Amino acid sequence: MPREDMKKPLIRGGANPQHLGTSVSGPGTPLVGILGTGDFSRSLAKRLVASGYRVVVGSRNPKRCVSLFPEEAEVTTQQEAATQADLVFVALFPEHYSTLAGLKEPLAGKTLVDVSNGTKINKDKESYAEQLANLFPESSVVKGFNVISAWSLQTGPRDGSRQVLICGDSSRAKNAVIDICHSLGFTPVDTGRLSSAREIENAPLYLFPSWRPPFLSTLVVFLFFYAYNFLRDVLHPYVTEGKSAFYKMPVEVVNVSLPSAALVTLALVYLPGLIAAFLQLSWGTKYRRFPGWLDCWLRLRKQLGLCAFFCAAMHAVYSLCLPMRRSARYKLLNEAFKQVKAGQEDVWVEEEVWRMELYLSLGILALGVLSLLAISSLPTVANSLNWREFSFVQSRLGYTALVIATLHTLTYGWTRGLDPKQYRFYLPPTFLLVLAVPLAVLLGRLALSLPCAALRLHRIRRGWERSRAIRFSLPGDECNGGLQEDISRV
Amino acid sequence: MPREDMKKPLIRGGANPQHLGTSVSGPGTPLVGILGTGDFSRSLAKRLVASGYRVVVGSRNPKRCVSLFPEEAEVTTQQEAATQADLVFVALFPEHYSTLAGLKEPLAGKTLVDVSNGTKINKDKESYAEQLANLFPESSVVKGFNVISAWSLQTGPRDGSRQVLICGDSSRAKNAVIDICHSLGFTPVDTGRLSSAREIENAPLYLFPSWRPPFLSTLVVFLFFYAYNFLRDVLHPYVTEGKSAFYKMPVEVVNVSLPSAALVTLALVYLPGLIAAFLQLSWGTKYRRFPGWLDCWLRLRKQLGLCAFFCAAMHAVYSLCLPMRRSARYKLLNEAFKQVKAGQEDVWVEEEVWRMELYLSLGILALGVLSLLAISSLPTVANSLNWREFSFVQSRLGYTALVIATLHTLTYGWTRGLDPKQYRFYLPPTFLLVLAVPLAVLLGRLALSLPCAALRLHRIRRGWERSRAIRFSLPGDECNGGLQEDISRV
Amino acid sequence: MPREDMKKPLIRGGANPQHLGTSVSGPGTPLVGILGTGDFSRSLAKRLVASGYRVVVGSRNPKRCVSLFPEEAEVTTQQEAATQADLVFVALFPEHYSTLAGLKEPLAGKTLVDVSNGTKINKDKESYAEQLANLFPESSVVKGFNVISAWSLQTGPRDGSRQVLICGDSSRAKNAVIDICHSLGFTPVDTGRLSSAREIENAPLYLFPSWRPPFLSTLVVFLFFYAYNFLRDVLHPYVTEGKSAFYKMPVEVVNVSLPSAALVTLALVYLPGLIAAFLQLSWGTKYRRFPGWLDCWLRLRKQLGLCAFFCAAMHAVYSLCLPMRRSARYKLLNEAFKQVKAGQEDVWVEEEVWRMELYLSLGILALGVLSLLAISSLPTVANSLNWREFSFVQSRLGYTALVIATLHTLTYGWTRGLDPKQYRFYLPPTFLLVLAVPLAVLLGRLALSLPCAALRLHRIRRGWERSRAIRFSLPGDECNGGLQEDISRV
Repeated sequence: MPREDMKKPLIRGGANPQHLGTSVSGPGTPLVGILGTGDFSRSLAKRLVASGYRVVVGSRNPKRCVSLFPEEAEVTTQQEAATQADLVFVALFPEHYSTLAGLKEPLAGKTLVDVSNGTKINKDKESYAEQLANLFPESSVVKGFNVISAWSLQTGPRDGSRQVLICGDSSRAKNAVIDICHSLGFTPVDTGRLSSAREIENAPLYLFPSWRPPFLSTLVVFLFFYAYNFLRDVLHPYVTEGKSAFYKMPVEVVNVSLPSAALVTLALVYLPGLIAAFLQLSWGTKYRRFPGWLDCWLRLRKQLGLCAFFCAAMHAVYSLCLPMRRSARYKLLNEAFKQVKAGQEDVWVEEEVWRMELYLSLGILALGVLSLLAISSLPTVANSLNWREFSFVQSRLGYTALVIATLHTLTYGWTRGLDPKQYRFYLPPTFLLVLAVPLAVLLGRLALSLPCAALRLHRIRRGWERSRAIRFSLPGDECNGGLQEDISRV
Repeated sequence: MPREDMKKPLIRGGANPQHLGTSVSGPGTPLVGILGTGDFSRSLAKRLVASGYRVVVGSRNPKRCVSLFPEEAEVTTQQEAATQADLVFVALFPEHYSTLAGLKEPLAGKTLVDVSNGTKINKDKESYAEQLANLFPESSVVKGFNVISAWSLQTGPRDGSRQVLICGDSSRAKNAVIDICHSLGFTPVDTGRLSSAREIENAPLYLFPSWRPPFLSTLVVFLFFYAYNFLRDVLHPYVTEGKSAFYKMPVEVVNVSLPSAALVTLALVYLPGLIAAFLQLSWGTKYRRFPGWLDCWLRLRKQLGLCAFFCAAMHAVYSLCLPMRRSARYKLLNEAFKQVKAGQEDVWVEEEVWRMELYLSLGILALGVLSLLAISSLPTVANSLNWREFSFVQSRLGYTALVIATLHTLTYGWTRGLDPKQYRFYLPPTFLLVLAVPLAVLLGRLALSLPCAALRLHRIRRGWERSRAIRFSLPGDECNGGLQEDISRV
Repeated sequence: MPREDMKKPLIRGGANPQHLGTSVSGPGTPLVGILGTGDFSRSLAKRLVASGYRVVVGSRNPKRCVSLFPEEAEVTTQQEAATQADLVFVALFPEHYSTLAGLKEPLAGKTLVDVSNGTKINKDKESYAEQLANLFPESSVVKGFNVISAWSLQTGPRDGSRQVLICGDSSRAKNAVIDICHSLGFTPVDTGRLSSAREIENAPLYLFPSWRPPFLSTLVVFLFFYAYNFLRDVLHPYVTEGKSAFYKMPVEVVNVSLPSAALVTLALVYLPGLIAAFLQLSWGTKYRRFPGWLDCWLRLRKQLGLCAFFCAAMHAVYSLCLPMRRSARYKLLNEAFKQVKAGQEDVWVEEEVWRMELYLSLGILALGVLSLLAISSLPTVANSLNWREFSFVQSRLGYTALVIATLHTLTYGWTRGLDPKQYRFYLPPTFLLVLAVPLAVLLGRLALSLPCAALRLHRIRRGWERSRAIRFSLPGDECNGGLQEDISRV
């Protein structure tokens, strides 16, 4: 499903660019130069022309390239382009920067925009933009536009939803690039001096950095429970009774491990907030920094929550598939056979019926509430909520989901925890293990809602400090003008 | 699932702010003051510095606070900050405003930005911004930034997707704040004079005001049907035959009430449009205002529709869970036993088979169409549709869903409406009750599509009025230049 | 589910507009005129006033209309409005443009904004904006705001997420309109000279142009498989054995055709990229244009993918409904009867059990991966991905889904392809037909990942050309400054 923006064809890159005459881009418009004639260069030229800029392209072989560019762009030699333009985009592979050495003079005092990208994450080498700046010490180099692909330039939205990271040492040069960003329909983000260019060059190369820890921890939890259930449900009957239950591996064992991973991960979403609150309570201040791992954990709660939701949704689909399987059918038929042979007219067990009905409805409710949470994580939906609504959804609804999911697990377990036969290989039933973290979180939350703790926490978060409580509190300081979003959000 | 924006870490609040020297924020940059040193103050200072502003912070205790602020921000006394700055953010709790009395003189003629928030919705008291304006009659007070949290300032997106409501009596002062909004990556929305500050202060305190009536009405409909079905399906067998069917309460009764609520609520989405159309037809003009309740109802149709979708989706999950229950299993086994005892080789009933296959496929189709409607309600998807597409989705697809859902209910009911045994406690079967509203809506819609009504309605919506039809119609007036989106959207 | 924006009521059209006095829109603010007094005119006047503009409305009957406009807008005669205003919106139906002939003189030299819309797509006639320009040769006509409805003007978001297409021959006039766009919270998109007005007037009339080919091709594939399965599963037993299986038409035949359509369509998403790669390999250059049909196919891959996902999701729901049907119940009961009669204690077939467990888990996994792909197609989610993440999701995850779905189909078919009884009417089993396209795509992809092909393709995409390989390659040309998004994205 490759991206193809939903905008109408008309609004891509300016319709009828052949009609854009000098009346649109008059003599006052700044003249933008582009060195290089690759895909990026051509897409940039088109977008610049469509946005009303005059464009001059510098090529080593102007005659061969002229047909690739829009009519309004002038294609000439590199020397000529560098001389004419006020601001020059350097759209060459960095390995060819040295071929530009002859342009030092015409480019002196001008703004150069380095749009290059690496192919690997660069942790210690000099950035390409700094290399360019070393080559042209008399020009002002600005890093930018590397996060935008040629494809985005031609077909992407113009509504400012795409950010362009820029940096550079000259604020005048940066402002010129910022203006172009705005005109082209991007949102510029100034990240400081040219020394942060390496980070900008790395930006398009990261692969879901904020998803990695939550994904890995969910995976580890899942694999642990998979192994645990494999031991209990597949290996145990094989070893003790010689019964082969290996057919359970693709569906049944997965379907017990998925909800285990979901519930534990959901509890892990709320655990760091509790730890933060307890730390603040024991420190008696909110001005001490949390340890790094806690900060990081707090920042990744959204991703953890979405991992939990994904596991829960997959668990729902797996569960719904259960009655469809051949194995379920064969078991049912064999049971019917046995019932007939035994002459047992009614097999109804009221307790089992009730357990299952409660268990199912709690599961459905938990999934429903989690779905609302997941939807409110979509960027546009989250943006349309005010602070109180957001905290209501994430805190109230989130804890509601945790409580319902815990009850769902409890009704699943029912009295099995008391049955010695369930302790196969001396291992307790899975659901007892699963419940440890969510029950700890819910108890911790309960403790924090006791009046003594809640009141003190509230005061600490309004700026009160135990160490200064005896001194005269300066009223104008340590206050919070805006609505403060609790970092711990408990 | 707490919000953690999906942007890369790099672009938060300006990387490497320690490198932002004077070359970026040169002497021409306006000097922004902040009074107060709480969380909001610190986050604001960081974002201002990262956006190229020079910042001076006024504290009662500058030495103690200096380490909390970015290096580029100057931290000094309140007096000094008020004197130097051109524009001053007042980031104190409103209860401490009186401590600023000594700054009247240095702040005279300057713009003060009140960023404070209340803790409860304020219906009649003076707003904090007006209190500040009374304290500093010679300064121009602008209300703003209170809807932005300290958290958003530090980590939020910079793409203008967050709105900042502002108001004030001086347009010059407002323009200065609007400029800062834009530079910080927010979208300013001017709501008028300072007297609207109370509304701005209330804005972050509302809890889903537009969801409350649709949610409550869906809940009432659901509870009504739950009680009705409880009477018929649980209480009736208990009272008349002494049979306990209480196990039906968590799943089966819910699963009959959910689709009832879904269909009735979906019909309520299209009812107000019909009422509006009939009113316009009977009035003979579109220039008369609808009564307040109708206006309100028309505005809440999207939320009503999403409530209907949520009920329908939950109904689907509940239904899919039915064969998984113990009760379904026991019933099946007992039936197999009976069949064997009776020696009945084939229990196939062709009519029942057909009813069920039709009933299921109509239900799936209705859910599929409703899903498309729900997806097109997402803000970004809705924004990418043009008017014709939007009206196609909401009106055509919406009515299609209503028709299919009605047929789904009819095939569910089948001939039961004619069976006297179904009238338990003299109450008609649920599906007959449910069908009342959707059938009324569909008949009304049919009536409006008759040529005589459709033509007249079309003319009325193009500006024709019955009362003026005899007079000479002035061509240039009452017309509609743009594509008019029918308010009634039938 | 009509759209009702999620913003709070407060921010609609400026709260308390009655308080907006001259202090806000001072004497320096440009005076905007509006001719016409319809819905659009009134909504525009309100939004202009709320954004700080002074507004004068020209009406044929000012006294009658004055009450319909906000207090701050002056309502006067058309002559008077045309004389006073600096820029004039013409908000009349185009058929009434001729009534404005008398205003030629006061409008001379001014900017006229044509906001009109057609009712049908206009393929060859002159646009309304050009008609207006012919009437007022001495004014500068700009087309714009026609894509915005009166409804959007009053209630829509102000965050620039709505685009306003504009065009015109005078850049000065266009800039004035662009400024108003920005102030009103829209994003202007300049599409060139006035001759592109026809396209702008058509823009709101298109009905999902980019969805039509993918939707139709999915429909054709679905219908083909429906007919094929009808022949094999319904007609064949009726013709050969006289058995009526017509009850299978609403659910079972649909549920075999849906996954067929889903898998074939998913394969069609990745086929054009392969064709493009093979063309580039055989041409030895990336600078030759692809044929039109391939370009178009490449552009519609996202929509194709979403169609495939929709079919897959519906297939999942249909499958989950299967055990719920009466027919399934009757068959199960009859089977139990047979088992008892035959005295067969255990009907377990290990191979069938394994096939089904594998088949189900592969199906669930494929759906899970496809869901992730679908979610990443949402505009805001796609916008928050960098290039590497986007290509990972669309290419890696996409091919993963294709492989899993192919395996799902293979385990469904199992050994049936070898059973002569499955060749009813000499037609091969459906799954063999379905597998043709995905297997071809996977084999083609495998061929491209052979080192010889992969290396050459990589070089071609970095700008290498076979025809020039013998010549000295000019280093500074044919390069790609930014990260190039492979058009073929294989």
